[in-house]
Amino acid sequence: MNKNITNVRGIKCWGAHTGVKSLRRDLSLIYSEVPAATAAVFTQNKVVAEPVKLTKKHLKDQSAQIIVCNAGNANACTGEQGARGAQAMADTTAETLGIKASDVVVASTGIIGEPFPTDEIVEGLKQNLPKLSKKHAAGSFAANAILTTDTFAKEGFLEFPADGYEINLAGIAKGSGMIHPNMATMLSFIVTDINIDNKLLQALTKECVDETFNMITVDGDTSTNDMVVVMANGMAENDKITSKKDEAYTVFREKLMELMTHLAKLIVSDGEGASKFIEYVVKNAKRKDVAKKLIRAISDSTLVKTAMYGRDPNWGRIVGAAGNAGVAFDYEKADLYIGSAQNQVKVLEDGKPADINRNAMKKLLREPDLKIIMDLKAGKAHATGWGSDLTTDYVLFNSVYTT
Amino acid sequence: MNKNITNVRGIKCWGAHTGVKSLRRDLSLIYSEVPAATAAVFTQNKVVAEPVKLTKKHLKDQSAQIIVCNAGNANACTGEQGARGAQAMADTTAETLGIKASDVVVASTGIIGEPFPTDEIVEGLKQNLPKLSKKHAAGSFAANAILTTDTFAKEGFLEFPADGYEINLAGIAKGSGMIHPNMATMLSFIVTDINIDNKLLQALTKECVDETFNMITVDGDTSTNDMVVVMANGMAENDKITSKKDEAYTVFREKLMELMTHLAKLIVSDGEGASKFIEYVVKNAKRKDVAKKLIRAISDSTLVKTAMYGRDPNWGRIVGAAGNAGVAFDYEKADLYIGSAQNQVKVLEDGKPADINRNAMKKLLREPDLKIIMDLKAGKAHATGWGSDLTTDYVLFNSVYTT
Repeated sequence: MNKNITNVRGIKCWGAHTGVKSLRRDLSLIYSEVPAATAAVFTQNKVVAEPVKLTKKHLKDQSAQIIVCNAGNANACTGEQGARGAQAMADTTAETLGIKASDVVVASTGIIGEPFPTDEIVEGLKQNLPKLSKKHAAGSFAANAILTTDTFAKEGFLEFPADGYEINLAGIAKGSGMIHPNMATMLSFIVTDINIDNKLLQALTKECVDETFNMITVDGDTSTNDMVVVMANGMAENDKITSKKDEAYTVFREKLMELMTHLAKLIVSDGEGASKFIEYVVKNAKRKDVAKKLIRAISDSTLVKTAMYGRDPNWGRIVGAAGNAGVAFDYEKADLYIGSAQNQVKVLEDGKPADINRNAMKKLLREPDLKIIMDLKAGKAHATGWGSDLTTDYVLFNSVYTT
Repeated sequence: MNKNITNVRGIKCWGAHTGVKSLRRDLSLIYSEVPAATAAVFTQNKVVAEPVKLTKKHLKDQSAQIIVCNAGNANACTGEQGARGAQAMADTTAETLGIKASDVVVASTGIIGEPFPTDEIVEGLKQNLPKLSKKHAAGSFAANAILTTDTFAKEGFLEFPADGYEINLAGIAKGSGMIHPNMATMLSFIVTDINIDNKLLQALTKECVDETFNMITVDGDTSTNDMVVVMANGMAENDKITSKKDEAYTVFREKLMELMTHLAKLIVSDGEGASKFIEYVVKNAKRKDVAKKLIRAISDSTLVKTAMYGRDPNWGRIVGAAGNAGVAFDYEKADLYIGSAQNQVKVLEDGKPADINRNAMKKLLREPDLKIIMDLKAGKAHATGWGSDLTTDYVLFNSVYTT
């Protein structure tokens, strides 16, 4: 049967309704039977939610045993009351399970600036921590209990051999329906039973997040609560991976990248106000950071996004956006391809317009999945990113309704 | 990566928001590139929704190419207006895709007795049928767009060899949060690329539904809209299965049973007002139907369900409920076991109370997953069923709030 986070050795889950949200599950629990090497990447936003502050402290030793996440209230801009609430989540969890409070990862998502409903959540923790379970439904509960305006739970599972051991790697994520960008917290919780050094895991997590979750754009902004956490509990019992040169490291790196890519693309796919999913590729750049910055600039551009909505192969807007990326590249040498996920047409060669059939292009751009490739022919660095178009629905939702 | 219905050969999906529900996806599309042998089991309720009536007609030839399901309005007790609405769903789908209207399976779930929002749904079909896609997110959209009060999407995927061919089998289902029994439509849509005779598929579907979806109890009632549909499009290209004696039939039967069991158990797990998941087993009955009727009677009993909520190993209530099943069984020979999913204690031997430690039992019954086994020692027939407990929350929700 299809598997989820509960199929990782030693991982138990639960997701419950505490009452913070009206009728939906709003408390997610992901527990490892043994303390796990734990890496995390946090929001770049200058305003940081209370759970993020606390979790940063708890993860100084790069070890944790449970992720506890509530939805409905972000516990951001909540001051001392919120700080006490986040601490209470950690303390209650630690007491109930008999583990260290510093081994609790606390996360929140939801409305910003409302008093934190500490009592409801503490009571919910006491009721539900004893229910931690390995059954499939418990993984679904956990995946659904972190959602806010998402229209579906994002889950991924991979199993693969590394160094002769069978490894399980699974994760859940949330983004946001584009109609509620104010609540666009991005969370992802990933668990694996691989045995890996915690410093190496931290460096790898950062590297993978940079190529995946950091390469998607929905609204272009980060939230106060964004957090990606990877827990590796070592229960696969492989020899501990301690070097990038280990064969198992290479395998794990590839799989972690695959899982995060999958989850990141699902986040982009979940845009109610969006009509298209667009993959951006910059090829043969001199350096990777150049390729990434170009993708960021192009995929964030409202002019590019509205052109894609309008099925307009307007390469001028793409080149214009690239020019705003703040990185040097030789436009005179660049080729540009626009099209569907399956079929792209060269619209620019060596910086000069190619002969294209505009009507055929318009037809091609009717596809819900598009792809734009810029080939700089200047080096060997590639990058890929994902984004959506900008639709009248999106603007209508966000201008007519107050969120 | 974890797979879903889009990983079955030839299957494309989509799920969209048409506006019938306020902000959630409410239109689910599951399409096969070629006409598929299609089996279905429908509600036993005497009041039958319009889409069920229409689909029964369409499936007389046991062939279909698409399942179209809307959520938010059940199109039940809607009379002529509703009948025209269901027909419009089929006609619009057929025209847009260029297929036969009789190859469209129409399903609905939601509120009963409200005028059917035909225009919104027809418009939604026109907008979204061209988006049918094989990408993973499209399967998630479809799985989520059939939900009403469910708290998570129920999905299953299996791949297995049969007769030397690789077969894919996947499905989605919906039940209902226990807090809204009035909307407790049970739907399951299953797709596979196996090549099987349509009459054989119909018989097998009926057999599997009887052992799975028909062995769960949430509220004990069937709804006006219940429907299980299995589409087999043959794209795995195995030699067509035409007999129960075919080796591939045995494999497929086992896998279809496994998938339906998985989905049925997920439906039971999704009871907001329930605190326990209970597996019921009747062993060594004279006949299968006796075992099944006993399970039905025990699992539907409010006295048994409240005892399980109260962690009370009250075998008297279980035996009492069994006595009401309307089937003959020799109580004097029966053993009864009550306990957690992992560990059951014999509480009755040859119809006489065994020595039990009530405190230890009470502790055992704290587990969220329980198991009750009745061994009739009278024959060789077994049956298994699943249900939940009955909690004060459930009663409160359904007595204080109007649904």
